[in-house]
Amino acid sequence: MTTPTVGIVMGSDSDLETMKKCAEQLKAFGVACEMRIISAHRTPVVAHEYASTAAERGLKVIVAAAGMSAALSGVLAANTTLPVVGVPMASGPLAGVDAALSTMQMPPGVPVACMAINGAVNAAIFATAILATSDAALAERLAQFKKDQVAKVMEKDRSINR
Amino acid sequence: MTTPTVGIVMGSDSDLETMKKCAEQLKAFGVACEMRIISAHRTPVVAHEYASTAAERGLKVIVAAAGMSAALSGVLAANTTLPVVGVPMASGPLAGVDAALSTMQMPPGVPVACMAINGAVNAAIFATAILATSDAALAERLAQFKKDQVAKVMEKDRSINR
Amino acid sequence: MTTPTVGIVMGSDSDLETMKKCAEQLKAFGVACEMRIISAHRTPVVAHEYASTAAERGLKVIVAAAGMSAALSGVLAANTTLPVVGVPMASGPLAGVDAALSTMQMPPGVPVACMAINGAVNAAIFATAILATSDAALAERLAQFKKDQVAKVMEKDRSINR
Amino acid sequence: MTTPTVGIVMGSDSDLETMKKCAEQLKAFGVACEMRIISAHRTPVVAHEYASTAAERGLKVIVAAAGMSAALSGVLAANTTLPVVGVPMASGPLAGVDAALSTMQMPPGVPVACMAINGAVNAAIFATAILATSDAALAERLAQFKKDQVAKVMEKDRSINR
Amino acid sequence: MTTPTVGIVMGSDSDLETMKKCAEQLKAFGVACEMRIISAHRTPVVAHEYASTAAERGLKVIVAAAGMSAALSGVLAANTTLPVVGVPMASGPLAGVDAALSTMQMPPGVPVACMAINGAVNAAIFATAILATSDAALAERLAQFKKDQVAKVMEKDRSINR
Amino acid sequence: MTTPTVGIVMGSDSDLETMKKCAEQLKAFGVACEMRIISAHRTPVVAHEYASTAAERGLKVIVAAAGMSAALSGVLAANTTLPVVGVPMASGPLAGVDAALSTMQMPPGVPVACMAINGAVNAAIFATAILATSDAALAERLAQFKKDQVAKVMEKDRSINR
Amino acid sequence: MTTPTVGIVMGSDSDLETMKKCAEQLKAFGVACEMRIISAHRTPVVAHEYASTAAERGLKVIVAAAGMSAALSGVLAANTTLPVVGVPMASGPLAGVDAALSTMQMPPGVPVACMAINGAVNAAIFATAILATSDAALAERLAQFKKDQVAKVMEKDRSINR
Amino acid sequence: MTTPTVGIVMGSDSDLETMKKCAEQLKAFGVACEMRIISAHRTPVVAHEYASTAAERGLKVIVAAAGMSAALSGVLAANTTLPVVGVPMASGPLAGVDAALSTMQMPPGVPVACMAINGAVNAAIFATAILATSDAALAERLAQFKKDQVAKVMEKDRSINR
Repeated sequence: MTTPTVGIVMGSDSDLETMKKCAEQLKAFGVACEMRIISAHRTPVVAHEYASTAAERGLKVIVAAAGMSAALSGVLAANTTLPVVGVPMASGPLAGVDAALSTMQMPPGVPVACMAINGAVNAAIFATAILATSDAALAERLAQFKKDQVAKVMEKDRSINR
Repeated sequence: MTTPTVGIVMGSDSDLETMKKCAEQLKAFGVACEMRIISAHRTPVVAHEYASTAAERGLKVIVAAAGMSAALSGVLAANTTLPVVGVPMASGPLAGVDAALSTMQMPPGVPVACMAINGAVNAAIFATAILATSDAALAERLAQFKKDQVAKVMEKDRSINR
Repeated sequence: MTTPTVGIVMGSDSDLETMKKCAEQLKAFGVACEMRIISAHRTPVVAHEYASTAAERGLKVIVAAAGMSAALSGVLAANTTLPVVGVPMASGPLAGVDAALSTMQMPPGVPVACMAINGAVNAAIFATAILATSDAALAERLAQFKKDQVAKVMEKDRSINR
Repeated sequence: MTTPTVGIVMGSDSDLETMKKCAEQLKAFGVACEMRIISAHRTPVVAHEYASTAAERGLKVIVAAAGMSAALSGVLAANTTLPVVGVPMASGPLAGVDAALSTMQMPPGVPVACMAINGAVNAAIFATAILATSDAALAERLAQFKKDQVAKVMEKDRSINR
Repeated sequence: MTTPTVGIVMGSDSDLETMKKCAEQLKAFGVACEMRIISAHRTPVVAHEYASTAAERGLKVIVAAAGMSAALSGVLAANTTLPVVGVPMASGPLAGVDAALSTMQMPPGVPVACMAINGAVNAAIFATAILATSDAALAERLAQFKKDQVAKVMEKDRSINR
Repeated sequence: MTTPTVGIVMGSDSDLETMKKCAEQLKAFGVACEMRIISAHRTPVVAHEYASTAAERGLKVIVAAAGMSAALSGVLAANTTLPVVGVPMASGPLAGVDAALSTMQMPPGVPVACMAINGAVNAAIFATAILATSDAALAERLAQFKKDQVAKVMEKDRSINR
Repeated sequence: MTTPTVGIVMGSDSDLETMKKCAEQLKAFGVACEMRIISAHRTPVVAHEYASTAAERGLKVIVAAAGMSAALSGVLAANTTLPVVGVPMASGPLAGVDAALSTMQMPPGVPVACMAINGAVNAAIFATAILATSDAALAERLAQFKKDQVAKVMEKDRSINR
Repeated sequence: MTTPTVGIVMGSDSDLETMKKCAEQLKAFGVACEMRIISAHRTPVVAHEYASTAAERGLKVIVAAAGMSAALSGVLAANTTLPVVGVPMASGPLAGVDAALSTMQMPPGVPVACMAINGAVNAAIFATAILATSDAALAERLAQFKKDQVAKVMEKDRSINR
């Protein structure tokens, strides 16, 4: 079993359905990952522990998804020097605006890379792009993904004009 | 020297000028407090330590002020059962909307009492109201404060009609 | 029958389903409460009466839930020195943004502790935390609640990794 | 001295400079008015008293200006059947968005006529339009005001094309 | 057949279901009204004509409901000195925020009384309050409406405590 | 003197300083224009007249700038089939959000081309692009403008790397 | 087969159902158009190619529809001097607010004509209005469209008063 | 002279003052970078060229800063597989909300890592964190930066309590 290089952490099991898409996209790129439910507010000790030992356990990137007052990505970023990618979740009546601002508006010194609201797939692609900066094979797979994406859009374009 | 019952914590020394008004209002009520600069994102270990030992050190209420992705109040609330009063600060281009949502939109299980943006004085009054639930003398001082407030507004009302 | 220490007031019976969760959570903590439908705009005299006699009737904390131009929590806070916890309700097309701003943006002198939109459970926990500042047994129950909460999240975390 | 028919109430003396324009515009229409500083949150008893006796004191319309969690217009409307015109004030970091939502989003049963943020002059014109529904001379003055307004804009139009 | 004193104008027949509640409420107060579909943008000449002849046709108040870029109430107000009550409609993806700002943010000189989003019933009550400033019988009916409203809320309050 | 092909209309002389940039840009393209102050709300008859006679007077495009409840562009579009370009102005406390929504959210059937807030220069370029669809010389000038723009940015790019 | 004069470009096939209404409205005006799926972010080379050759292929106007971070209209406008009409799409949790700001807030030098969110029909009408500036027959059809529109609204008005 | 591994691109020279802080922070970490002014809307060909050749020129990460309809980061991300870090700039009346949504709300397939509004320093730290995933010395410097940051906040904390 491969040691995961990307840790996908979510604040609640209600985020699981969306974040599985992140894991699937990473798998498609051949990137080993783990999925965890850890809450910055409900299990702060676990969150602290997870982030502060992430690097030594072999993780290279952390993806953190949370809704509402989405402190998770920031709390993880506070406890590691690994790049943390935040996914604001559209839970609750504010449709993710709360989570987006909480994730994005990090103070100077502790960055989080904010994806689009519910942007689970992009988190996987971005994590892969980070890893690809030192992994030529992965960079090649990303380049191929981009080409395939072009082909798909062009095929759709042709299909509406047939 | 009296043991503080209210801990005023702020995420940055740029919050100090505003939060001093909180300390002054508490002092006016005769409530002992301490002021600390602790950042949820930059000094997470201190934040964790502060909150988890707050009760045993004699604190009854924590007031936490932070701007932008204001995780401080939530992180402190995550590590204590004491009531945490959050003051979203209007720092940065979003005028405190980011901090207000981060402070207010806490997930079920870990409440934070969100005050108005920059609401340092109200945080002091609310902390006092909490303490006054078991301190009749303090309740009396709050009642007097309310009466004085009425008198001040009524005096202003009279002054514009002289 | 125990004298209630927490008064749960809501502006409309449409808030009842959500606010029952507040009452249930208080009951789970062993905190006696009462539920009332009182509208700041439609029954202002009742609202005034309720708040100004709350302390003498034995209440220690008031929880007030209202939607739209949510004046209820502020009007109650205007007429009592007890701590008032406001729950903005997501009624109407603005999804509770209107109620959140009305509840949160109290002027200096009259604080309201704003919870998350629809945050009925957190209002109960926060009211309990207030009472627990002078009730060691209650503080113990809160601490246990926090531990149980940790266990639940950790169990969910394990369940997705089985 | 003429009995005022319009009562201008403001929540704070910081609203005075803006609301004087309301009084001046009413005076220009020959409408007698009074100005009062009454806070829904700080002087709730005065607010209640003011509104519930307004009609018997001869008032026909109430103009209420407040900022932030602007409960004033709603609280006055709760205690009178007179038409209440609300002016949300742009105080604080949210530029009056909070006051506008608090003023506008009144629940069914208790309307407030919300003007533009800081719309003191329009409140005067609207109050006059209300009075003019039963005062032909006033209606004539309003019609003249509208004509003068046309002339002013047309003169400005000409002036930039000279 | 009674000459209508209130004209209810809406920008689209999609507003009809909501605005019927306005007509019903007026009828309940014994206020004669007419309903019209007139679009500021699609039938500007009719809108101009309607407003500029409204007073001479016996109307005392105009209620105007529109969604999106809700110009209707402002355009009517531009062409009459009668009080215009605007009802922003929650049509389209912005849930009425667009219509609310368009209705509320009138420039100095041409006021519109903005109700809550979809506030059809309140528009009827407010129009009645305007008419009641010179109609004692109507004022009495409004007062009775307010009393009935109190009774209804109090009955609901009792019902949850039985 | 050339007959203007673009009419620049603004709701208030406070828009003049910004909208002069529109006229200057049109002049730079050799497009004749006229500037007018016409208010949809204060001079509705003039607005109606202006738009409904615009085509016969030789205008090809109307640029309309207004702030707050910016009805001007929509009202002009309601009365002409010429393309109307709207410029929402950042006047008042809402920084042009109100004007932007009023300008942009036009109902089906009556389009307005909304520019950026305060986008006076872009309104000129867009009006020119419209005219250039049937004027090859103008299209050439627009192409040159685009080339000059590239050169300017590239020169700035070089200047920071010298 | 007629050479299209309007190019309708959309960023995703999920926009197709809405944008078909644009094509149908153009067809109703007798304006030849083409529909394309081209993504600014996924097929940037195609987008660049499409815009930079649009004029020489006979296009006079480009309509571009995209959701979320809607770069499409701006990217096309960057590569052509033809007028570009942008349609922000209400996809995702933010209901099109993101797309509207991305489409509308173009920097000086590169305008895009922003329609209402999902404003496909208005894009067609506006594109036609552009073409009609040099096509009297088309201008006549637009005028007739406007008349028909008046008749439809007036018929609805009559129908509710029968 | 070291080949830059981070490319800092900004859409306008008005972004230079803020983005210099990004370059300075990178320099403090010993990371070589280049600064460029390239506009997605005004110099699209340069933007395309820059991104599509970035990897072969040795860049590992691109930082892109833009205001308003901030297409720059997305356009660069469209043309490279390198990780792109976006910095929304607070230019114009919307205080960077427009740029933040444009930068953050990227469609699936083309991620951009959105920093806080004006978050130039965090962009540098995040770019360094990316590079540090394959550079132990850099990781060590980041760890030291975090320790220094802790020390600074703790010193400030002590200073207010002396």
